Amino acid sequence: MGLGVETVSTAKAHGGTQGVYRHTSAATGTAMTLSVFVPDHAPGATLPVVWYLSGLTCTHANVTDKGEYRRACAELGLIFVAPDTSPRGEGVADDPDGAYDFGLGAGFYVDATAAPFAPHYRMWSYVTEELPALIGAEFPADLTRQSILGHSMGGHGALTIGLTFPERFRAVSAFAPIVAPSQVPWGRKALAGYLGDEQAAWRPHDAIALIEDGARISELLVDQGDADQFLAEQLRPDLLADACRRAGIDCTLRIQPGYDHSYLFVSTFMADHLRWHAARLHTGS
Amino acid sequence: MGLGVETVSTAKAHGGTQGVYRHTSAATGTAMTLSVFVPDHAPGATLPVVWYLSGLTCTHANVTDKGEYRRACAELGLIFVAPDTSPRGEGVADDPDGAYDFGLGAGFYVDATAAPFAPHYRMWSYVTEELPALIGAEFPADLTRQSILGHSMGGHGALTIGLTFPERFRAVSAFAPIVAPSQVPWGRKALAGYLGDEQAAWRPHDAIALIEDGARISELLVDQGDADQFLAEQLRPDLLADACRRAGIDCTLRIQPGYDHSYLFVSTFMADHLRWHAARLHTGS
Repeated sequence: MGLGVETVSTAKAHGGTQGVYRHTSAATGTAMTLSVFVPDHAPGATLPVVWYLSGLTCTHANVTDKGEYRRACAELGLIFVAPDTSPRGEGVADDPDGAYDFGLGAGFYVDATAAPFAPHYRMWSYVTEELPALIGAEFPADLTRQSILGHSMGGHGALTIGLTFPERFRAVSAFAPIVAPSQVPWGRKALAGYLGDEQAAWRPHDAIALIEDGARISELLVDQGDADQFLAEQLRPDLLADACRRAGIDCTLRIQPGYDHSYLFVSTFMADHLRWHAARLHTGS
Repeated sequence: MGLGVETVSTAKAHGGTQGVYRHTSAATGTAMTLSVFVPDHAPGATLPVVWYLSGLTCTHANVTDKGEYRRACAELGLIFVAPDTSPRGEGVADDPDGAYDFGLGAGFYVDATAAPFAPHYRMWSYVTEELPALIGAEFPADLTRQSILGHSMGGHGALTIGLTFPERFRAVSAFAPIVAPSQVPWGRKALAGYLGDEQAAWRPHDAIALIEDGARISELLVDQGDADQFLAEQLRPDLLADACRRAGIDCTLRIQPGYDHSYLFVSTFMADHLRWHAARLHTGS
């Protein structure tokens, strides 16, 4: 690999190659690890890219181990990219109490402006600028065909990034996303900690606020388990459904009876989402 | 749950329930943890049981996280049981050097007779006697329809148990199994350590020796990656193919190009194996 990308591991899986890679990120100023699955393909061919953003406490490894995405990606011809959820390593600030919902493993896909997080917590730039360039340079990726999905905090990332770059992503979906971080405890803690107390700075990182402020995409797919312990306090998909209704965004919100917040839920509906993405990635040019 | 079985966790997944359970085992004299997936089913219905035995270093959790068996089990109506690979806990002897291939996480599915392992290392009795009774009592299991499969050391377990109880299992298959422990380093260390140096005592725990000594089943399915680092020294599927040929056992050995020894390999072919099992579990009565 070029661009200083180190191959940590590769293995054949489901008729493709599951790799794990490490590189020094200019955005975060740290070593970053990500996983990339590339289906077998004809020499010279390029494939659409599906971005998967993970939730609180996760690294690239959680979805790589438990996401059950490879079979569908191989069948559908989709590259699947799973970044880490925060910078890590020496000198990277963490939650002062070591809490799981802020700092390490909880970058919330923003570029921090508040001390002491501003130097390294630049996950927005990392995911929206640096990584696409890396994926385009190092993998058989067709960057004219991208889509994005995520889980929980990563669902927040997928929604805000998808709403900000509607021309870039042909499909946006989420599993149990945080839809209104400005209105829920996880999000208020994170946005205040990374961006400061001035709430105007939060709006570009709140899907509901983005829609209120005029961001538009044509459609969304969201799955949400009704046995999810975080549903009422942290996730509030009702707020997303309402905002989309007012904005004319076609939001398919599926309440899945009995499902919780874990990867047992995510993996159950992963292939559904990938098929929905593929239908939008494989049409037109 | 009865029989002193404690529910550690349950969650809905792929239209079924993934549970993790803990109980005090009479066989091993320790607390044992296992995972059980039960597809949704009609009230009062019973389902066939597929036993999955894991490999070196694993607990119940590896296949539960990475095995990608739930979708197929739900579709095919199969209960999937994944025990741990050894006793654990205070007073349980381990490899004197803490090696990964003996002691904790490496019970090799035998009843140990040698000190200091004899008191707790009784995985044969645990898997073949105690657990079937527990599963039959606590889950909607039809014990007249069972099958068994496993990975690596667990493939060894599946083969030896399947060959020993041909009337119990309608299907036996394996991923990258240790087929001839008496002839390879992992197996020689384990069998000597658990059973002593007298090799006559090893034969009931060596699939090749069992077949040589007259054990018969009608057919076997084995998948083996040709990029498996343990293939030539530890696994030797050629020995199984030869023994089956001589014994008239229909052994389908599929060499999978490019696949290694990991769960990326196992998960790729898991659904294939489960369909093969289901075809044999769902016929007749």
